[in-house]
Order: sequence, then C-alpha cells, then structure tokens
Amino acid sequence: MKLYDLDVSGNCYKVRLFAALAQLPLTLQPVDFLGGEHKQPHLLTLNPWGEVPILEDGSVVLRDAQAILVYLAARYGGAAWWPTEAHLQGEVTQWLSVAANEVQHGPNAARLVDKFGYPLDKSVALATSARILALLDAHLAQHDWLAAGRPTIAECAVYPYLSVAWEGGVDVSRYPQLCAWMARVEALPGFVPMPGGGKPR
Amino acid sequence: MKLYDLDVSGNCYKVRLFAALAQLPLTLQPVDFLGGEHKQPHLLTLNPWGEVPILEDGSVVLRDAQAILVYLAARYGGAAWWPTEAHLQGEVTQWLSVAANEVQHGPNAARLVDKFGYPLDKSVALATSARILALLDAHLAQHDWLAAGRPTIAECAVYPYLSVAWEGGVDVSRYPQLCAWMARVEALPGFVPMPGGGKPR
Repeated sequence: MKLYDLDVSGNCYKVRLFAALAQLPLTLQPVDFLGGEHKQPHLLTLNPWGEVPILEDGSVVLRDAQAILVYLAARYGGAAWWPTEAHLQGEVTQWLSVAANEVQHGPNAARLVDKFGYPLDKSVALATSARILALLDAHLAQHDWLAAGRPTIAECAVYPYLSVAWEGGVDVSRYPQLCAWMARVEALPGFVPMPGGGKPR
Repeated sequence: MKLYDLDVSGNCYKVRLFAALAQLPLTLQPVDFLGGEHKQPHLLTLNPWGEVPILEDGSVVLRDAQAILVYLAARYGGAAWWPTEAHLQGEVTQWLSVAANEVQHGPNAARLVDKFGYPLDKSVALATSARILALLDAHLAQHDWLAAGRPTIAECAVYPYLSVAWEGGVDVSRYPQLCAWMARVEALPGFVPMPGGGKPR
C-alpha cells in the first residue's frame, strides 16, 4: 500500500509511525508540497481537501491521518492497536479528536508559524498548547498509556506533533509525566522518530 | 445512561441526535454552564477538560462528542451507524475528524463569536467555514451520505453545527447539495432538531 507522504508533516508521520510499530509494509510516495503537487489534479482526485497524508490500498483511498490509523489498525493491526470493545473504541477516539483538534491547533500551529511561516495566531497556538500539555501531563500521571491501558493508535495520533513541539517554541520538558510517556512511546519495538524530532528533553 | 448536557451546545446535540435516531434511552442532566458548573470538582472528576458533553453509562465515562458517538453506536447501535468493516470505519472517521477540527473551528467558532461573544478570530472562522462548506457541497454532489453509502454517526457529528451556522453569519443556502443532504438528515425517522436551529434555508 502507498502513502502519499511529506517527510516534515507530523500527520504523515502518524501513519509512518504506526506502520513501523505494527510492521506494515508501506510504500512512501513523496509529494512535492512546496511545488504544490497536493493541489494538482492527480492528487486532488484522491483527496479533494488538497492535503497529505493520503493512503491508497487497492481500491481503498483515505485522507486524514486519524482515519488512516483506524483503517490500518482495524484491517491489519488487530485488536492490539484498535480495540474491538465499544468503551475502549470510545476511549481511543477521545484522543483521536484531541489529535485532530487541540494538537493540530496547538503545537502543530505553533510549529507552522515558526518553521514554515504560516500566518496563524501564535499566541492562540501557545495557549492551546499550554492547556493540553497540562491536561496530558495530569492524565499520564494516572495512566501509562493514553487509552485502554496499552499502546494504541491514540499514541500514534498524539505523539508526533509533541515530538517536534520545540520547533514551535513549545517546551514539553516542563511536563514530566508527558515526557515519561514520550519515552515509553520511543521505547516501543519498531519505533521510528520524526525527521528532526530528536531534540533532547 | 446519563448525558451531562447543555441545550445550546452543538456538541451535546450530536449525542442527543444520535440517541433519537437510534432510539437509545438518554437521561439528560442539564449543566449550569453560565454558572461554571462544568469547572466544579464533581464534573471535573468526570471530565478534567471541563467541557460538555459527558456520557455516564454504568462504569463507562466518556468526554468528546465524537468518542461518545463511536461508543454508543458500537455498543448499542449496531453496524447500521458505525460499520464494522475497516475501510468504512476509516471513511466515517474522516468525518469525525472534520467535525472535531474544521467544523469546530469554522461554523462553531463563528457562532461562538456572534451568539456568545467569545474572543475568537471571526475572519478565520468564516474562511474555514467557506472552505469546508464548498468541500462538503462537492462531496455531497456525488454522495447521498457522508460515508459508507448510508446514514452513520458521521451525519450526527457534522450536521449539528451546520444546522445553526446562520447564528454565526454562515449562510449554508449557497450550497445546494449541502442543503439537500441536510434535508435528508432531517427526514430520518426519529430526527430531533437543535434548539434554535430551525431557520429556513
């Protein structure tokens, strides 16, 4: 299966990380983002939203990193990464929403401003970041993993932009429980880092 | 089961709508939002994020409307509303992410500014709204329903804030395919409207 990929995109890294952890074969198709390839007809046909990642697996085409994680885990990863029990699917989905909303508009937005010059409101991004990092730290003081008592796709959805949060001026080192969880993620068999994500905490 | 509820919240309405469509018994526990009840210890214990909705179903406690939809549909609604096939779970999840991200930061944010005086950037909310309404309209020109070829929890996640978008100055009437889909949602057996959502299109 093929991932239309951008190496510096945390959303693409969510999929690469899960594929590495679950040992799924993934062919990376780099997208010339700076050249606007994601807005060209051949990619807009696959994803009218003009964004990466896009997953192509036979006749299945999906956009949105969280959706791709659910698909890959449900189809290939087994209940280990995406539980079958209703209440545990609910628990995991709580964090998929956090990844799609608060992480996107917090650490990711701050990084888009600092690293790529996006005209977003940095102060809003920093305030959102501070709020969710504190909530994550408190949650992780009580739980080793985000949901279901074990590593799931919730980790793959939430970890990526936190691992490069420092590129947006967001300092995760002030949140010790969060850092301990990040270290647990990084110790999972098969873990691969985000390119450029290796700043010591 | 009990829903900690705020009648003017579109996120709470997502859950009320699904419960009505799937004929699930739901006890509504109104939260005194203006009085700050959601920040009081008894609700912060259930949801440290200090937000509604919160679902309590026996020992299961969940926050986040999308997560509650997945839980309720998986546990009580059967495959009709939350498919069991991996690629269809992926399709639906695409729209849960849109509900958690773009709808939240588009039509919902515009309404928060106009109706409740939140200090958000209205121009960003309107731009986000215009983008996703056009994408939705194009998608719905090809599909009767958002995902899986039938009504699913994707409808319950995306429809609510669109039904009250006019309260934020977002005019959905310019998007005929979107309006036709909204009419299809409103014709589903058991449908209940958002309080105040009844402006003619």
